[in-house]
Amino acid sequence: MPIQAISWSPSGAVRIIDQRALPEAEITRDLESAESVADAIKQLQVRGAPLIGIAAAMGLVAGTRELRTAPRRDFLPRLAQLSELLANARPTAVNLRWALHRMANVAQETPGDGTALWERLHAEATAIWEEDRAMCRKIGEYGLTILSDRTNVLTHCNTGALATGGIGTALAPVYLAHEQGRGVHVYVDETRPLLQGSRLTAWELKHAGIPATLITDAAAGTLMRQAKIDVVLVGADRICANGDFANKIGTYGLAVLARHHGVPFYCAAPWTTVDASLPDGDLIPIEQRAATEVTVMAGRPIAPEGMNVLNPAFDVTPARYVTGFITDRGIVQPPFSA
Amino acid sequence: MPIQAISWSPSGAVRIIDQRALPEAEITRDLESAESVADAIKQLQVRGAPLIGIAAAMGLVAGTRELRTAPRRDFLPRLAQLSELLANARPTAVNLRWALHRMANVAQETPGDGTALWERLHAEATAIWEEDRAMCRKIGEYGLTILSDRTNVLTHCNTGALATGGIGTALAPVYLAHEQGRGVHVYVDETRPLLQGSRLTAWELKHAGIPATLITDAAAGTLMRQAKIDVVLVGADRICANGDFANKIGTYGLAVLARHHGVPFYCAAPWTTVDASLPDGDLIPIEQRAATEVTVMAGRPIAPEGMNVLNPAFDVTPARYVTGFITDRGIVQPPFSA
Repeated sequence: MPIQAISWSPSGAVRIIDQRALPEAEITRDLESAESVADAIKQLQVRGAPLIGIAAAMGLVAGTRELRTAPRRDFLPRLAQLSELLANARPTAVNLRWALHRMANVAQETPGDGTALWERLHAEATAIWEEDRAMCRKIGEYGLTILSDRTNVLTHCNTGALATGGIGTALAPVYLAHEQGRGVHVYVDETRPLLQGSRLTAWELKHAGIPATLITDAAAGTLMRQAKIDVVLVGADRICANGDFANKIGTYGLAVLARHHGVPFYCAAPWTTVDASLPDGDLIPIEQRAATEVTVMAGRPIAPEGMNVLNPAFDVTPARYVTGFITDRGIVQPPFSA
Repeated sequence: MPIQAISWSPSGAVRIIDQRALPEAEITRDLESAESVADAIKQLQVRGAPLIGIAAAMGLVAGTRELRTAPRRDFLPRLAQLSELLANARPTAVNLRWALHRMANVAQETPGDGTALWERLHAEATAIWEEDRAMCRKIGEYGLTILSDRTNVLTHCNTGALATGGIGTALAPVYLAHEQGRGVHVYVDETRPLLQGSRLTAWELKHAGIPATLITDAAAGTLMRQAKIDVVLVGADRICANGDFANKIGTYGLAVLARHHGVPFYCAAPWTTVDASLPDGDLIPIEQRAATEVTVMAGRPIAPEGMNVLNPAFDVTPARYVTGFITDRGIVQPPFSA
């Protein structure tokens, strides 16, 4: 069974699996405030574009529990403040801002004071989560149509149950293929520097009993040359109007390798990942992360002190490398409009 | 100044930098006996194929210092015994056996007792070291001809002063460009799983004051797309007659990316790396290494227990991706014969 990455705690806190602790320990945390959700997003305890959108929406709800008795004029400014805080937790993922806008909109449209507003927000956050579960399954069903029996999939980063409220995006077709006994096997890129592949994807596939093999990122090319990869499935953090998309650093290199070896390369993402306001990928802001992600491992230095490091969290893959975009609206081709 | 990876101590011991301790600590060790040199090779305190050969030859000399007053009939059997011990330190390293064989031959050919034999061996070990230094410098000089001013080089693994008796192979042109004030800058692939890039290459470039930036292996593609890489310089473990060559895993992917982006891709290696007995790269045996290199870091698990792993140490890059082979005989093109 796929792992459940997020839920409400009995007291109304946001219950998460602490993804930083995996694979050594499976730790559940109850995040009681919007601030602690923002921190958890910043620290990558919760990550994956769809999941951080859900977490942010749920975080607004958990963080306004105390305001249920407040008047509207106190509730809405505080909501805006918490929303701003959550929006700034990660700059690249569009889902975060999308979920927060949606929450702000329903609050504006709902009449009444604290109780009415809070109950409406609670219902909306739960709806965002449930829609995400349904979205994952749809992506899985559409994606399943491009997987033959005994397919060897290569994937990068984590786009599975740990990245969403459901069975994932790029891993959703894999979960369904496995469910149907179609002999799917996954090569998992370890995905340096934060090792979401080895720590998370490997862990959740193993948890679900899906055959998988872990490789270093640099091994993907030679596996394609040896015809060991039938299809590449990756996720997306933001998709532009022309189909250029941002995803975990290393995705672009895989796209070039796939093109070079004639391996189909699919990007799987919810339709909400499309940011039609951006004409092309050159306009996507790319988050640069701390040098220590590359230079320190398990508390020990693996590079000389003070070493200069370039650590972009994402890269941009131009649309021309993409065989198709597997979305909850079907397998589609750019251009995209909202 | 490049680091000096090996030298004679004032007392005639083999002085090395303990490469296992890098980058956390710079520890110099004086290995007084052939046994301690063998141990240092076994424990990877000394690594890099050329450097291991030099260390073994010097170890024979350090280990026979006490025998300078011994008769020939005592000296030669002890020499053979120590040579056997050193040869077994890393059974697969070709340079190790080559250097020991060369030392045994000169001992056989030299008349006289302990003093004469030892002095001849001392001269021969020093010659092996000096030839290696000269080979590095020649590769550097030929390689320098392909580097413009303010060149951004991308390199993989460690092919520098820490792998040889001199200024390295693929890094040799970089050292000379820096010496001449030509504003060279190096992007260093960290080189998973064993991180020779971040632990060794980054360290030795920093030690020499050469501007360098550490990146994850998966970041190379996007840097090429951004035109930040002017040339790729890598080493080789074996070069076939047709120019296909084996090198650290990830080299092939870089070659494809370089081709795709029109970035020149050079392989730098001593002529002795050519194995003309192998017609092409499909015949090169590829060592598969332990899963724990990928799943454990600094003693901590970074993948779920029992995870299936594919960990090839090398990949093969077909000759058609290589702009040129920078050797101590010049910049050459296949086919190669011995």
